[in-house]
Amino acid sequence: MKAINAEIIGVGTELLLGQISNTNAQWLSEQLATKGIGVYYHHVVGDNHKRLLDVFKLAARRSDLVFVTGGLGPTDDDLTRETLAEFVGKPLCQNEQALADLEYFFKRTDRDMTENNLKQTMVIEGAQIIRNHAGTAPGMIVPFQDCHFIIMPGVPNEMKTMMKEQILPSLSEMLKLHDVIVSRMVKFIGIGESQLEMRVKPLIDQQSNPTIAPLATEGEVALRVTAKAHTKLEADELINQTLAQINDYVGEYIYGYDEESISDVIVKWLSEHHKTLAAAESLTGGRFADAFVSVLGAGHVFNGSLVSYTADAKAGALGVQQATIDREGMVSKQCAYEMAKRAKELFNASYGISFTGVAGPDPLEGKEVGTVYICLYTDSDNYIIEQFSFPKSREIVRNRSVKKGLQLIYDKLIRQ
Amino acid sequence: MKAINAEIIGVGTELLLGQISNTNAQWLSEQLATKGIGVYYHHVVGDNHKRLLDVFKLAARRSDLVFVTGGLGPTDDDLTRETLAEFVGKPLCQNEQALADLEYFFKRTDRDMTENNLKQTMVIEGAQIIRNHAGTAPGMIVPFQDCHFIIMPGVPNEMKTMMKEQILPSLSEMLKLHDVIVSRMVKFIGIGESQLEMRVKPLIDQQSNPTIAPLATEGEVALRVTAKAHTKLEADELINQTLAQINDYVGEYIYGYDEESISDVIVKWLSEHHKTLAAAESLTGGRFADAFVSVLGAGHVFNGSLVSYTADAKAGALGVQQATIDREGMVSKQCAYEMAKRAKELFNASYGISFTGVAGPDPLEGKEVGTVYICLYTDSDNYIIEQFSFPKSREIVRNRSVKKGLQLIYDKLIRQ
Repeated sequence: MKAINAEIIGVGTELLLGQISNTNAQWLSEQLATKGIGVYYHHVVGDNHKRLLDVFKLAARRSDLVFVTGGLGPTDDDLTRETLAEFVGKPLCQNEQALADLEYFFKRTDRDMTENNLKQTMVIEGAQIIRNHAGTAPGMIVPFQDCHFIIMPGVPNEMKTMMKEQILPSLSEMLKLHDVIVSRMVKFIGIGESQLEMRVKPLIDQQSNPTIAPLATEGEVALRVTAKAHTKLEADELINQTLAQINDYVGEYIYGYDEESISDVIVKWLSEHHKTLAAAESLTGGRFADAFVSVLGAGHVFNGSLVSYTADAKAGALGVQQATIDREGMVSKQCAYEMAKRAKELFNASYGISFTGVAGPDPLEGKEVGTVYICLYTDSDNYIIEQFSFPKSREIVRNRSVKKGLQLIYDKLIRQ
Repeated sequence: MKAINAEIIGVGTELLLGQISNTNAQWLSEQLATKGIGVYYHHVVGDNHKRLLDVFKLAARRSDLVFVTGGLGPTDDDLTRETLAEFVGKPLCQNEQALADLEYFFKRTDRDMTENNLKQTMVIEGAQIIRNHAGTAPGMIVPFQDCHFIIMPGVPNEMKTMMKEQILPSLSEMLKLHDVIVSRMVKFIGIGESQLEMRVKPLIDQQSNPTIAPLATEGEVALRVTAKAHTKLEADELINQTLAQINDYVGEYIYGYDEESISDVIVKWLSEHHKTLAAAESLTGGRFADAFVSVLGAGHVFNGSLVSYTADAKAGALGVQQATIDREGMVSKQCAYEMAKRAKELFNASYGISFTGVAGPDPLEGKEVGTVYICLYTDSDNYIIEQFSFPKSREIVRNRSVKKGLQLIYDKLIRQ
């Protein structure tokens, strides 16, 4: 059976102005992957007749399934319906069902229907109509030569409802799809992208199903394992075999799977071990605390953080010795040590962690921009202080500091 | 004069599998819009040589500027560099600067450089090199016939750093070939999008140069004013006339211009008035402090924040009366009042602001998810407590709380 290849076209000038993100394309791609339909392109074009026509032409040449979202609204700059009709050489005609649905929609939502809404009841002759139970514009499946255009509204929940309730079921039917694709993410900490790829290269090279692909995002690396099979059960089986192999090769660097974040793992570990954490933040300025408070259930294990951005706050509110600040400076091993110790004491936690450094743009106390000290403190016999030197961009220094702090906790408390 | 048109190509199979969203395209579109550069297409393609080549061909035919993100990694499935070299018919050669930067990067981050990293020091002959201060792969500006390819890493913070620090400035150079386009953002607080649009509609309708475009992004509204002229002086003059008109229409809601954030304005005001601010954060969990520490020079006016996520931390580290928490609850006017008061005292600041509420997913103390109290405290005779009820999504509740806190400070201290 020939593999089905699809592309997703987003229509709307607001996408090209960056006012909204094309989340429809991501969601559709995920859905189609699980059906074993390969998405080869995303394309975004504005509300412009000529460019829209060009994009349709290209799609018809290169794809079996063309999913189009947006441009079905009632206003004059919504051109998807008219332009596709022109492209496939079919007239638009009013659809009774669509008209009935539209009238019912306005009755139900108790709003007045305006003249231009009637435009939304016009459909392409010969198209299969997809009723819209969440809005006013019906969708359509329009066959053209060897491919099918699937036209949907741009409003995410209208599009998603149509896909789930009507289009995906009839697609499997229409295309006699057999394969299921299952994909999992393996997440790593403490190893770089290139190192990881070298270590697992034999695995990557020796197998084609499941496939293994390295991914790098914001200071984190992962492996994407994707399996294709006739049933979900078989696909899961294949995936699990590969996960076991990956574990043999680089298991010591795996911290989690799929949506799991390092903070999730740390929160889970802390609650299982009935431990608590507190922080003292200088350059990270609350961003470390934020990483925890974002995690559900963090309230039981993350006692709090004291953001002491100024020297006065470090000495006053936090209680670092003034002598330490005068002698060693705010950006120093000793200051990091006292900050972590005070965080633990102040919030009555099992562990205290501290961040102090130079976010820039200018050097501080003779220390280069990017110099950061992080201390993890349990008691006066158990603590660790690490020094880092990050790239010289303020936001990056602050983000990397938070990541390194999470990694430090993971390495010292959880990994062994 | 021919208007500059751009397109944005995202490279990466993970985008087509829907594992990550193409946020780079949205960010780039916003940036280019502010430069008055029209983005006509977004295109996403996988790590596939032939399809990548096709996409480059198409882009060269239809666009003046082609921004490409992704596919510059060290691994075998990263093909952007090689494929573009083949397309423009130029060899790849090792770049000394890139090699030096790469070696320095690994030395600084004290990681081992592997063989395959060297691939990232290969650049296309004749390309302008964009140094990567945040990662390992340099970017490139590659001229081809009438257009320019701008190649960047897919990791958002590496791409953004390159754009802001190196590419956007040198773009203006390229644009000198044509008319000068000047664009300014007018930023508003305390007025909704539709309301703003209605108030300035006459202005928008009556003029085409400068153009006025409303923008709405996560709880903030702005107007983008874009003027085209033969010289920057003329363009600036046109812009200033329009800014004056906008000021007549809705001046009372303008808080700043261009990159200026509300935190910037507050920091500026505080330092001019020799005042300082401190915070006590419960549900915002450090996110409010982060908004200030992100601002350069905040160190002199933002004394700090105490993130007290638990009841113990509120009573212990922060010093809210236990009786208050027992009687009124943590999510109450009284608790918000004491938190703000203690923040001011603890950090010895002119003003204290506090955030307490229910981020969800479950109700707390019988209060609905989304219930938030914010208190701004100067002294026992001067304070204000506001209650909000936000949509029931954890992240939205936390972000809106931060925005409302900033707005509260702006309204009470600065607006009059």
